[in-house]
Amino acid sequence: MQPRFAASMSCIRPSFVSSILGAAGNPNIISFAGGFPATELFPVEDLRLAAEEVFRSQGASALQYGPSVGYQPLREWLAEEMGRRGAPCSADNIVLTSGAQQGLDLAARAFLEPGDAVLVESPTYLTVIRVLQAVQARLVAAPTDEHGIVTDGLEELIQRERPRLLYTITNFQNPMGVTLTEARRRRIAELASRYGFIVIEDDPYGQLRYAGTPVKPLKAFDQSGHVIYAGTLSKIVAPGMRVGWSVIDGSMLEAFITWKQVVDTMSSSLDQRIAHAYLQTGKNPAQVEKIRATYQQRFEAMAGALERYMPEGFSWTRPEGGMFLWVTGPRGLDTSAMVQAASQRGVLYVPGEDFFPLGEEKNSLRLSFSTSSPQRIEEGVRILADVCRQQPLSS
Amino acid sequence: MQPRFAASMSCIRPSFVSSILGAAGNPNIISFAGGFPATELFPVEDLRLAAEEVFRSQGASALQYGPSVGYQPLREWLAEEMGRRGAPCSADNIVLTSGAQQGLDLAARAFLEPGDAVLVESPTYLTVIRVLQAVQARLVAAPTDEHGIVTDGLEELIQRERPRLLYTITNFQNPMGVTLTEARRRRIAELASRYGFIVIEDDPYGQLRYAGTPVKPLKAFDQSGHVIYAGTLSKIVAPGMRVGWSVIDGSMLEAFITWKQVVDTMSSSLDQRIAHAYLQTGKNPAQVEKIRATYQQRFEAMAGALERYMPEGFSWTRPEGGMFLWVTGPRGLDTSAMVQAASQRGVLYVPGEDFFPLGEEKNSLRLSFSTSSPQRIEEGVRILADVCRQQPLSS
Repeated sequence: MQPRFAASMSCIRPSFVSSILGAAGNPNIISFAGGFPATELFPVEDLRLAAEEVFRSQGASALQYGPSVGYQPLREWLAEEMGRRGAPCSADNIVLTSGAQQGLDLAARAFLEPGDAVLVESPTYLTVIRVLQAVQARLVAAPTDEHGIVTDGLEELIQRERPRLLYTITNFQNPMGVTLTEARRRRIAELASRYGFIVIEDDPYGQLRYAGTPVKPLKAFDQSGHVIYAGTLSKIVAPGMRVGWSVIDGSMLEAFITWKQVVDTMSSSLDQRIAHAYLQTGKNPAQVEKIRATYQQRFEAMAGALERYMPEGFSWTRPEGGMFLWVTGPRGLDTSAMVQAASQRGVLYVPGEDFFPLGEEKNSLRLSFSTSSPQRIEEGVRILADVCRQQPLSS
Repeated sequence: MQPRFAASMSCIRPSFVSSILGAAGNPNIISFAGGFPATELFPVEDLRLAAEEVFRSQGASALQYGPSVGYQPLREWLAEEMGRRGAPCSADNIVLTSGAQQGLDLAARAFLEPGDAVLVESPTYLTVIRVLQAVQARLVAAPTDEHGIVTDGLEELIQRERPRLLYTITNFQNPMGVTLTEARRRRIAELASRYGFIVIEDDPYGQLRYAGTPVKPLKAFDQSGHVIYAGTLSKIVAPGMRVGWSVIDGSMLEAFITWKQVVDTMSSSLDQRIAHAYLQTGKNPAQVEKIRATYQQRFEAMAGALERYMPEGFSWTRPEGGMFLWVTGPRGLDTSAMVQAASQRGVLYVPGEDFFPLGEEKNSLRLSFSTSSPQRIEEGVRILADVCRQQPLSS
């Protein structure tokens, strides 16, 4: 007899991204596909010194089991960081996770039942679609424009769908690169309180702003403890250490910690201590500034190349930060069908379809500009435009 | 409106262990409660050198996202290690996890539905009770004696309960310290194949044998790919790095990897590389030898003190390795009620009740001998015996 799989398994769509990660390692390929930060910008030497410091000054205690909520000095540092971001909180409300993503999964498990409605941007982060499918949530697309989730009409949608949760990436959203306005943040926080749903504010990219004016986190407008803020060091330090955190209030906190204990006892204590020793040096702001400047240059190279090469009928977003922009082609274009032609010519991207909760739109694609030089970006976009030009449009 | 919690939440019993971890840090307390390995034995200097080597020779690539299955050279090392343990496998069948525990949680999510029957030792590892409660499995106690799960009558139990899964700690079981015999391992593997249930063999302590003859893993007798083996470096290197692995075959492998992607993308790449650099030095066998010798000495101190001090009517297991032994008192003793008296006199232990899937037995307790010196063990057991002597027995 063969083992059976859990029913939730069949709800999880296979991820395109994971299937192309292999190809993305080939140096002859120009990859706009991965959601990777730029490897060459990692503060390797500073982290090496931080690791040395941890081994020297903490020794064996850095290697023992610790509390499920994570390393206390890092929780305290992050509470101060939340203040700098405009959403002060207590260290007690911070739970360290393995990347921000684990926080999303823990929240989904702790607070959702099969069949619960969850509002998401449309398109949204494709892994969160899978996290929500894994708990058999019912995904509901919230209308989304160049300023994030549209709040006009949102209350009616909430009354109709009765969501348990709303998931949003507030800054330089993955995949569109758009940022939710302050007025909309206030409105969503207010609706969450009134209708009693949870908001997950996922903010991996908020520090990577290279243009425009920073907006306070949605969490800053949360008067009633309905908003969970998920942060990570992956894009401002390095992702290989898996240091993320969730800020979570009131009665939800205890449930969240219980789930953290159940799934893996705790995240890497060594990573948390190395990260803390590094952050303590005060070198991260300059590091973030270097990342911002580099991504801005790469964004501009991509925006310029799109302007020069893309055929008529294509448009794209102009994010003020982050790692991604979003290209929309003419109706009838099938970007999934176009993947093969592009990859044969050495260019990778992620077809837009994967980011729609119900897979409904086929004429868009996500381009990541974080990992290629301006020259490679120019070359890649030129090829991509050429491939687009040769695509048949279905009627 | 207040957020609601998922129904599975109410199925999770609060953990006694997590509530006393704080007290366990107090140096005036003699703690036999935690499941911690001995901090003073961690190979701090060797890990420091390994970290230095990783930063020096791998640099930024050690800090980037990597495959969800984990760092390939470590998977290869572990495949060889599985061969040394008597259950050879391919590196392709190894998925690195955040401790062995994450593997248990991933398997529970991937392969269980609410209401599915799961056979567990009685008593069993308390966190796995919570992992199984979290997916709303129906726990069924398999009769267990000093040689692990009793296989006489097991087939009838299987026919009656139709389990989807059987969970067992094969070596120096937590909490009893007992080891499953080879004949019983063969029998369980055979029954799994015949009745199509999955076996999870959790083996955190197998390398810590200080007496008797090693037994091959249950996985070694698995002809049909129904057994998942979960291993960890927590007890033979250090737990703060969170390096565990699952060995998993056939059609289950892909589902398991998908869940790993969903929950946290990957475990710490830095930890995996440091662990690999350390294991590559060939210094771990001597390290494990040192741990074994120390735990043997501590076990003997505990067994001797129990012999000397415990009142009549108490018995205990005599494990050939690992970190725990199990004390059973006279009927009518309530070890949960006795916790306060013992902790007031400076001794901590975990009441046996927590380890029973249905909380049904109250007259036993788990003692960990891994973290205290022989002198402290002697002193702690003397106090504990005194407290036991003063306990009223309910009728």
